[in-house]
Amino acid sequence: MAKVTADISMSLDGFVTEPDPGGANPLGDDPGRLHDWMFDAKTSTDAEIVDETYARAGAVLIGKRMFDVGVEPWGDPPPFGMPVFVLTHEAREPLPRRGGTMYHFATGGLEAALAEARAAAGDKDVGIWGGANTVTQYLQAGLLDELNLHVVPLLLGSGVRLFDGLDPSRIELTKTRSIDTPRATHLRFSVRA
Amino acid sequence: MAKVTADISMSLDGFVTEPDPGGANPLGDDPGRLHDWMFDAKTSTDAEIVDETYARAGAVLIGKRMFDVGVEPWGDPPPFGMPVFVLTHEAREPLPRRGGTMYHFATGGLEAALAEARAAAGDKDVGIWGGANTVTQYLQAGLLDELNLHVVPLLLGSGVRLFDGLDPSRIELTKTRSIDTPRATHLRFSVRA
Repeated sequence: MAKVTADISMSLDGFVTEPDPGGANPLGDDPGRLHDWMFDAKTSTDAEIVDETYARAGAVLIGKRMFDVGVEPWGDPPPFGMPVFVLTHEAREPLPRRGGTMYHFATGGLEAALAEARAAAGDKDVGIWGGANTVTQYLQAGLLDELNLHVVPLLLGSGVRLFDGLDPSRIELTKTRSIDTPRATHLRFSVRA
Repeated sequence: MAKVTADISMSLDGFVTEPDPGGANPLGDDPGRLHDWMFDAKTSTDAEIVDETYARAGAVLIGKRMFDVGVEPWGDPPPFGMPVFVLTHEAREPLPRRGGTMYHFATGGLEAALAEARAAAGDKDVGIWGGANTVTQYLQAGLLDELNLHVVPLLLGSGVRLFDGLDPSRIELTKTRSIDTPRATHLRFSVRA
């Protein structure tokens, strides 16, 4: 059966955005540093991990905040090339983009949004690609099968913290893969909730 | 020249103790999980990393809180087998133990304590072995050459957070080693402050 996977980049001190996200620069003061490994891959290993992540996913699920800060920089065509479900409270018509991306606005809550994304993904995985709050909600709800944490060798000191407010008492992670490059340590965990 | 190195185990969500450190169990509610890779090494790789860490160090430097919770469980002889400098405000006579361990109480501040430990270490390294606050203080002061972070595949949700209150704006880490075992991802960084 297709999996529900999450992918997120995190600094060594646990932050997923630079300080001041949502300011002039949507990912923070100096957004490049946390995501350089993806967008400006310098090693073939980093590039392969990006390619594999896209190849496995049949649909993407993201939070509303991530959509709001991302929709402009992602442009048209966006990088997804597949249906993207935006978890939101605000009903809205689907927003088509070129190259196979269609933004759908899912207002029925975590499980309903995931069911819609699963249906769209067919036999491929649903990729929950952020932000922190969305990944944490799915993890907490026991709806995540796999967590991919890309640990970037940076200390940020502040920003949005991954896993904030999580009660992990019933969540068990088993590390199933670790690939190291100069720019990130790519850790994969299977999740049992 | 001998290096100043730090070693600390951290959960995926950034904690270096289990919830409720200092309660009945000095390292927290369920202390084993964060430090199992050291004390009950199941792979030869984990055991080699422990051995290497001891072999490189000519003296150890720890915080007072860590000393207070550790001194009983470490017993006599303690596992160190070398001089251990305890960063404290309280002057106290050196405390001898069997097997080469002598606890020294360094009251002159970060730099003075480090100078004492360096002198004792000779041409070996000084190992700053915790807790979080002590490691962070040396990192912040630009006195650390190398940081070894043992990232344990656990989510703890609360506890003492490594890097709390750190201003990392002038600290640059370069990853120089990554060794993965089922129980920890052993990351080594050189520090430029």
